[in-house]
Amino acid sequence: LNKQSIVEKITGARRSPAHEHGEAFAPSNIALVKYWGKRNDELNLPVTSSLSISLGNLGTRTAVELIDGSDVILLNGLPVPSDTSFSKRLREYLDLFRPAPGTGYRVTTHNTIPTAAGLASSASGFAALALALDHLHGWQLKPRDLSILARLGSGSASRSVFKGFVEWHAGSADDGMDSFAEPLCAVFPDLMIGLIKISVAEKPVSSRVGMKRTIETSTLYQTWPAQVARDLKSIRRAIETSDFELLGRTAENNALTMHATAIASWPPTLFWLPESVKIMQAIWSWRASGMPVYFTMDAGPNIKLIALRDQVAALSSHLHSIEWIAPFT
Amino acid sequence: LNKQSIVEKITGARRSPAHEHGEAFAPSNIALVKYWGKRNDELNLPVTSSLSISLGNLGTRTAVELIDGSDVILLNGLPVPSDTSFSKRLREYLDLFRPAPGTGYRVTTHNTIPTAAGLASSASGFAALALALDHLHGWQLKPRDLSILARLGSGSASRSVFKGFVEWHAGSADDGMDSFAEPLCAVFPDLMIGLIKISVAEKPVSSRVGMKRTIETSTLYQTWPAQVARDLKSIRRAIETSDFELLGRTAENNALTMHATAIASWPPTLFWLPESVKIMQAIWSWRASGMPVYFTMDAGPNIKLIALRDQVAALSSHLHSIEWIAPFT
Repeated sequence: LNKQSIVEKITGARRSPAHEHGEAFAPSNIALVKYWGKRNDELNLPVTSSLSISLGNLGTRTAVELIDGSDVILLNGLPVPSDTSFSKRLREYLDLFRPAPGTGYRVTTHNTIPTAAGLASSASGFAALALALDHLHGWQLKPRDLSILARLGSGSASRSVFKGFVEWHAGSADDGMDSFAEPLCAVFPDLMIGLIKISVAEKPVSSRVGMKRTIETSTLYQTWPAQVARDLKSIRRAIETSDFELLGRTAENNALTMHATAIASWPPTLFWLPESVKIMQAIWSWRASGMPVYFTMDAGPNIKLIALRDQVAALSSHLHSIEWIAPFT
Repeated sequence: LNKQSIVEKITGARRSPAHEHGEAFAPSNIALVKYWGKRNDELNLPVTSSLSISLGNLGTRTAVELIDGSDVILLNGLPVPSDTSFSKRLREYLDLFRPAPGTGYRVTTHNTIPTAAGLASSASGFAALALALDHLHGWQLKPRDLSILARLGSGSASRSVFKGFVEWHAGSADDGMDSFAEPLCAVFPDLMIGLIKISVAEKPVSSRVGMKRTIETSTLYQTWPAQVARDLKSIRRAIETSDFELLGRTAENNALTMHATAIASWPPTLFWLPESVKIMQAIWSWRASGMPVYFTMDAGPNIKLIALRDQVAALSSHLHSIEWIAPFT
């Protein structure tokens, strides 16, 4: 079982293009219950399910067309040198879909979020690419198959093919055909996500390396699956009952627990910067003074506030340069 | 079973003083395998064993004598107001030993370490007090009974009645008579501990509250006892074979795992300050460049370097104001 066999299972033999070009947008997503740990590295199959919220029009827009010769990749208007890891990763993914060995793709991609800064650009990137390839090739795949194709590029990309609240089912099959995301039919109109960018530099340790090291060396990881099972129930209930406090508390504790498993790994894996700690402590003191605000963090130093619309002005007065996203408007 | 019944079991009915005054010194200690979680709050019985290194002449010197009337407590030359929590805790402990209800103690205590700044002044404080009371009353108790008396004041005080490497056996008896510390017959002459004081302010969350909250709310705590069992074996082996690298790695991972269990508790319990993170990251970068240096941290923001004597000069050139302790000289 490898990526190629899964792609063939999903797309069949249909390799020739149906259109001149394919194009799609996929939103970035932030997990409220984190994806942390793979049971299969090749197919990006997760140890646990996860649950995210998409970030409106922050994400990736990608256009693809077939060309003769080797791939051409443009990121935010600039050609990406072929010896970068970004380019290699993209070309390996494109290898899975080429109509013929000599055929290349021209990929034009625009991120409205900083690349590799903990804002999951690989999630929206591979989701947009999978959707654009479906469009180009005219496969008209079902949403769950699109989610699986995106997952083969990056695990959390499986969630970025949908909007709103999205749950990625871990599944249990060896081929991962039951490991796909689905949108939850629920909205939370007043929910706001506030992005606090602490660093947009490339991370010293990638999510990929961090989760692998955690699984292999952190004794604390043993209880992570049980915590995720509990947190998924709480977040689903919080969404159904519009219980903001339960949603915020569960998401913050889930994120901190994920970071804790990494801190306890060897070598120690700490994604935070001193400034991250400063802002966390500020958030805790705002909460102690009665302001309902929570946060989540991915495998990086940046902080994402979880708040309600009527707190946005007060929070922005405490801390400048919060970028607010309204996921449901 | 309460503290009083344990004290009577150990000291019998001998309450009248044998000397005009009693006096003792007890060293501070730093756990290489942490004490984190109680199985009995009243008797300070721990969930797991722990293992520490004493800090030479950093610690507490305490003199006690009996007086008529209420207790008089002098800390570093200054009277301690009777409405402080420090004073209340001390007087409750002294209640266990009074020859008669109307009798008070005059306690004169000197710390050579900052109080309540993560440098375990309660450990050396209660150990010195237990030793001084034994002297005053002329009980001539066995070391293990002195360790138990000290433990009734503060858990980690059980280790501060000894020098060098000390293991506190968790024990399993309900009355805690098998929960005492013992010195290890081993030295590590080149081992150095470097104190980096980041804050000497009173901690917002005490160890006592932090460990209780962690046991009650952190799912990650479930694997802590298994990690401690593994780490105790590794540290004992490191001490026997003078394996500095194994000692440092095990101690650092144990401390970070303890902090991780607290980070994953609710409300989130983070003992670090932004400066703590800055220094941790500096240590990791020194180590990445080949310098054998590790660290440990207790339930506070301060960092304790674990190093070898021949690295002291280089480390001090990287970071000013490291206070170096040679535990075995």
